[in-house]
Amino acid sequence: MADRDLQNTALITPLVGIIMGSDSDLPVMKAAADVLKDFAIPFELTVVSAHRTPLRMVEYAKAARERGLKVIIAGAGGAAHLPGMVAAITPLPVIGVPVKSSNSIDGWDSILSILQMPNGVPVATVALNASKNAGILAAKMIALSDEVVSRKLIDFMASQEKSVNEKITFLLNEGWPNEFDKL
Amino acid sequence: MADRDLQNTALITPLVGIIMGSDSDLPVMKAAADVLKDFAIPFELTVVSAHRTPLRMVEYAKAARERGLKVIIAGAGGAAHLPGMVAAITPLPVIGVPVKSSNSIDGWDSILSILQMPNGVPVATVALNASKNAGILAAKMIALSDEVVSRKLIDFMASQEKSVNEKITFLLNEGWPNEFDKL
Amino acid sequence: MADRDLQNTALITPLVGIIMGSDSDLPVMKAAADVLKDFAIPFELTVVSAHRTPLRMVEYAKAARERGLKVIIAGAGGAAHLPGMVAAITPLPVIGVPVKSSNSIDGWDSILSILQMPNGVPVATVALNASKNAGILAAKMIALSDEVVSRKLIDFMASQEKSVNEKITFLLNEGWPNEFDKL
Amino acid sequence: MADRDLQNTALITPLVGIIMGSDSDLPVMKAAADVLKDFAIPFELTVVSAHRTPLRMVEYAKAARERGLKVIIAGAGGAAHLPGMVAAITPLPVIGVPVKSSNSIDGWDSILSILQMPNGVPVATVALNASKNAGILAAKMIALSDEVVSRKLIDFMASQEKSVNEKITFLLNEGWPNEFDKL
Amino acid sequence: MADRDLQNTALITPLVGIIMGSDSDLPVMKAAADVLKDFAIPFELTVVSAHRTPLRMVEYAKAARERGLKVIIAGAGGAAHLPGMVAAITPLPVIGVPVKSSNSIDGWDSILSILQMPNGVPVATVALNASKNAGILAAKMIALSDEVVSRKLIDFMASQEKSVNEKITFLLNEGWPNEFDKL
Amino acid sequence: MADRDLQNTALITPLVGIIMGSDSDLPVMKAAADVLKDFAIPFELTVVSAHRTPLRMVEYAKAARERGLKVIIAGAGGAAHLPGMVAAITPLPVIGVPVKSSNSIDGWDSILSILQMPNGVPVATVALNASKNAGILAAKMIALSDEVVSRKLIDFMASQEKSVNEKITFLLNEGWPNEFDKL
Amino acid sequence: MADRDLQNTALITPLVGIIMGSDSDLPVMKAAADVLKDFAIPFELTVVSAHRTPLRMVEYAKAARERGLKVIIAGAGGAAHLPGMVAAITPLPVIGVPVKSSNSIDGWDSILSILQMPNGVPVATVALNASKNAGILAAKMIALSDEVVSRKLIDFMASQEKSVNEKITFLLNEGWPNEFDKL
Amino acid sequence: MADRDLQNTALITPLVGIIMGSDSDLPVMKAAADVLKDFAIPFELTVVSAHRTPLRMVEYAKAARERGLKVIIAGAGGAAHLPGMVAAITPLPVIGVPVKSSNSIDGWDSILSILQMPNGVPVATVALNASKNAGILAAKMIALSDEVVSRKLIDFMASQEKSVNEKITFLLNEGWPNEFDKL
Repeated sequence: MADRDLQNTALITPLVGIIMGSDSDLPVMKAAADVLKDFAIPFELTVVSAHRTPLRMVEYAKAARERGLKVIIAGAGGAAHLPGMVAAITPLPVIGVPVKSSNSIDGWDSILSILQMPNGVPVATVALNASKNAGILAAKMIALSDEVVSRKLIDFMASQEKSVNEKITFLLNEGWPNEFDKL
Repeated sequence: MADRDLQNTALITPLVGIIMGSDSDLPVMKAAADVLKDFAIPFELTVVSAHRTPLRMVEYAKAARERGLKVIIAGAGGAAHLPGMVAAITPLPVIGVPVKSSNSIDGWDSILSILQMPNGVPVATVALNASKNAGILAAKMIALSDEVVSRKLIDFMASQEKSVNEKITFLLNEGWPNEFDKL
Repeated sequence: MADRDLQNTALITPLVGIIMGSDSDLPVMKAAADVLKDFAIPFELTVVSAHRTPLRMVEYAKAARERGLKVIIAGAGGAAHLPGMVAAITPLPVIGVPVKSSNSIDGWDSILSILQMPNGVPVATVALNASKNAGILAAKMIALSDEVVSRKLIDFMASQEKSVNEKITFLLNEGWPNEFDKL
Repeated sequence: MADRDLQNTALITPLVGIIMGSDSDLPVMKAAADVLKDFAIPFELTVVSAHRTPLRMVEYAKAARERGLKVIIAGAGGAAHLPGMVAAITPLPVIGVPVKSSNSIDGWDSILSILQMPNGVPVATVALNASKNAGILAAKMIALSDEVVSRKLIDFMASQEKSVNEKITFLLNEGWPNEFDKL
Repeated sequence: MADRDLQNTALITPLVGIIMGSDSDLPVMKAAADVLKDFAIPFELTVVSAHRTPLRMVEYAKAARERGLKVIIAGAGGAAHLPGMVAAITPLPVIGVPVKSSNSIDGWDSILSILQMPNGVPVATVALNASKNAGILAAKMIALSDEVVSRKLIDFMASQEKSVNEKITFLLNEGWPNEFDKL
Repeated sequence: MADRDLQNTALITPLVGIIMGSDSDLPVMKAAADVLKDFAIPFELTVVSAHRTPLRMVEYAKAARERGLKVIIAGAGGAAHLPGMVAAITPLPVIGVPVKSSNSIDGWDSILSILQMPNGVPVATVALNASKNAGILAAKMIALSDEVVSRKLIDFMASQEKSVNEKITFLLNEGWPNEFDKL
Repeated sequence: MADRDLQNTALITPLVGIIMGSDSDLPVMKAAADVLKDFAIPFELTVVSAHRTPLRMVEYAKAARERGLKVIIAGAGGAAHLPGMVAAITPLPVIGVPVKSSNSIDGWDSILSILQMPNGVPVATVALNASKNAGILAAKMIALSDEVVSRKLIDFMASQEKSVNEKITFLLNEGWPNEFDKL
Repeated sequence: MADRDLQNTALITPLVGIIMGSDSDLPVMKAAADVLKDFAIPFELTVVSAHRTPLRMVEYAKAARERGLKVIIAGAGGAAHLPGMVAAITPLPVIGVPVKSSNSIDGWDSILSILQMPNGVPVATVALNASKNAGILAAKMIALSDEVVSRKLIDFMASQEKSVNEKITFLLNEGWPNEFDKL
């Protein structure tokens, strides 16, 4: 990550904490950070292992709200306890990213151990490896009290529509018949 | 629902919209409404069927933000398209509740068709039938800009701990050996 | 697709609309187009994303019958809502192709979110990635009122049998014992 | 089935053949017949067992098109070979209904052995036990060349919307807050 | 549990701690206690909820070895984090019992979130609901340095064989042919 | 089993050994015995537990061929090791019946631990709880060198066809339209 | 297959028919032929497709017993109907090999559509891709009335044991500690 | 394994026996041996095949306790009977390692046939391929009566925490924002 604006981002109090069980989850979890940079939402990112640093996990979760965090994004694979355990300690909303790590059985273990939380302790679970969606979901939560982010989200939705439109044109140009878009 | 305070709740602009694919989902989805009543968060609740009233669904999702809603809780079973489709139209955060309805294969179809959204369009998915957790998650999002709800969440977490403590005492009184809690 | 006859095909009103959630589904969905070309059934092919262009999807489904389409083939992966949502809006038969896309869990999510439609809104689902079968199924529907296509289907079935016969001969020639075909 | 109009229906050449592996599938498969009666589409219904009467199955499939059938609906459970085998013999479109019979493992075997047909031999598969949807899908195919059935399908879709509207009113009357439908 | 010998058992320092996420797990987890009573191994039993009392869980796990416990048996259902989190904190062996609780999807979530621990933090997992086996496994560990328990285990294995022998005789007496046991 | 002919059956050397892991499997496994009685194939039936009487299992498997057995039918549930272990010791063909016992996860564990034998040690696996099919399969093996049993199998197949025919007539008489069987 | 003894094998009436749904299954199914060659059991091998040559399949199954076959080994992938359909027509024992073909979902569809046959029509199913085991199982059936094959099976089991012994020695020689085999 | 200290290890009576169904499991199972070497716990390692050397397996299990073994680690794939069968014969604790071998269906068969043991015969199951965890779990059992090993376990847990700390620093140095660890 040679990118210099990260330092600038760091000057402001982070609103979103991105944590993951292992640095091997970083290639997947990076996408959440990328989204937050695009939305100019200050964040922090580090490793917090439920199983190898349980007390660090407790401290991180306990301090989160006081430190000004609004949302925590937690990614983990296999028997993925990090999102649920953090949600058990902090009143903040926790977004869980099931990671299809090397020790995961096609992702089923990661999904079920994050999703199937008992009543009382929700984790907002996104799709397998979908840390980009975790970033967007965090932005949607921040947007509830931040008009600037809210507008960016609407722009983002428009940009998604536009990228589909470009593909429609591309297929037309390739010669695929398409009466609908000729109308 | 003979309960009279519902009318009072309804006098205020709802912050949370609870929608479900069919009124047969109501016994499951009611728990989300119960939580929001407990947290005194104004909500509305109705049926919006992705498959039988697709245009109503589009209208509901389009109007949601303008109407003042902050969060949408959507429950559905089987090929459950409601949460994802609403999330595709509104910039608001959408919480999806997979319902184990009569036409669901042990809940797997409900879970996968809500959880596995493509990048760009997140749905905050909770456990199978866990509409209570959907209500709590909505409260956590509201609490990001509402100190009163935030405090209630902290109280709620304490009450959960207390209810465990009562069970610990109950087991002790029943005669189960327990040196840890004697200390 | 350098192929020049596509333009010719396009001169006639399409009877089958092939749509897919993303252009990344094209390598799979192309096989449906190939079948329809072989059967000389006019078709169109474009991208319609349930999640990134929901209103386009509504318009496409609403206009389909008026525009002269007879059948819609819709392919999508992951939480695959396109086939079911189109089927909710048009009275035309909709054939769903579950695509094992990169964001799919071994195809289970694609299959279940297309197949498990509630009563009232059927989607004719084919096997994972089986867009060739979707094309044949569309031809079978067209053939109900088109004797030429009907005859082509019978020829197609004969050609399949013939290709098996060639393999039988090949194995015999390779020296594998086979008393049955010696008779 | 005391119902007298069945005899009348039978006077006309059936357009849809409903077959099932065992009479124990009748409680599930009946719903397809009910739909066709509602749409006034002549049908026939009988038992054809792939495994106990394989030659009857071959005869049924071979004769189907000559006899004037347009569509075959085939239901079976467990290792459900009937829909696929019939589709291998007749050029008519075959709709497969996976039945969750007593010898089925939660329906997975029924679904996979009907859905996962090889390329060349499609079966239009509907949801587990969804024979009502099989009936509607057959009607959609018939409607491609029958304006009367086509109009009935549009009416049917409207009636589904209406039944949702009644539930919306019911929930409003029960006192559930609902600002959307007050507008 | 009117049983008076429990009090006696409690007079001695417990060697095995049986903990469970909720008192609703007691009907399943009781079987572990029954085994330990039969083997005269002192134990304690209480509720420790990973999600509702996370700090109690940390304290329990931290203190376990100092307090003289040798083995911890932890049962939980759904997203079952208790066994793995305790194993992350204590150096003692932890036996995990996946409980098929009301919020579990046929037990798969319980199993995978207990079994699939990352390397470095093992949990000795037993079969779904098999808390009796958890008790026996704890006894096997205790027996490594306790000849009395070791002998009891050998007796237990003999008693299992004997109970099979009784069933063999019973079937013979019922008239089932059995040449093997006549020899 | 008050049935007196069992004693007679037992007078002859059994050709088929029916064994099961527990007498709780008897209600399922009985169907294999019923088939063999119908085919007048001498059999024996007893409990052989892989896990509670491993040495009895070894003895049973070792002696089987010498004692004149031709086929062994072994049923078990959960981690079902009996069929595979017996197949590892005897050169006789072993038919495995996965039993959906109380400790089985919807039968998946029983199926996989019987079916997925390594190359070198086959078990002829039948469907979940399908001990009737195990009996028929044993008869098919016996029939390879026994013309009487062979003819009975052909009669049995005819009787299955006949029972379907009776159901066809029954449905016709109930008034279901059926042009096929009128021909 | 340059191998010249195949021709010799073919001179004798085959006892085992190896059939497969497609020549793409040959790399898997070859192993069954290899075993039968090793046991000097005459066999034949060809393609019989349930879906592309259904009438050939009926003819093959009908003629099998008359032609002198004793056992049929049938392999297929995806919605694998070949083994079950052949078993429905011939009284011979049929061994089914689920093939993990390119159109199979991790093999689950192949396994379930072969294994889960209804009562009355058994298929002796072996593990996924385990055509070697299918060959051995066929040999075990032949051996019931063929002492030469029976002795070869016993030799084969001894050879398996011997190959394990060689590995034990290899590991010892590699320096792995092993007190058991030093005794 | 060129490593010379293995010989030294072998001089002492092994406390842990590592066995596996096939030498193809060695690359996975080696990690258990590595852990035990690190903890200086004497072990032995060999091949014991439940299916190819069933009598060797019986002898190994029967002799284990007399020979001074304290724990047995058994790894196997597919229909993995080795751990459960050994546990049926020896009173020692048996740790089962499900191996995702080439003949395994994504590991599900290995897991279920090791984990789902009936009550009375526990196997301490670890995650798929997690033989490192099997080694640690064995060390935890040995540590119950060995203070040196116990201390090494505590050191090992500390070293795991330390390796996480290094990753935290690495990410900080890479420029990722992280307010938590600045505190």
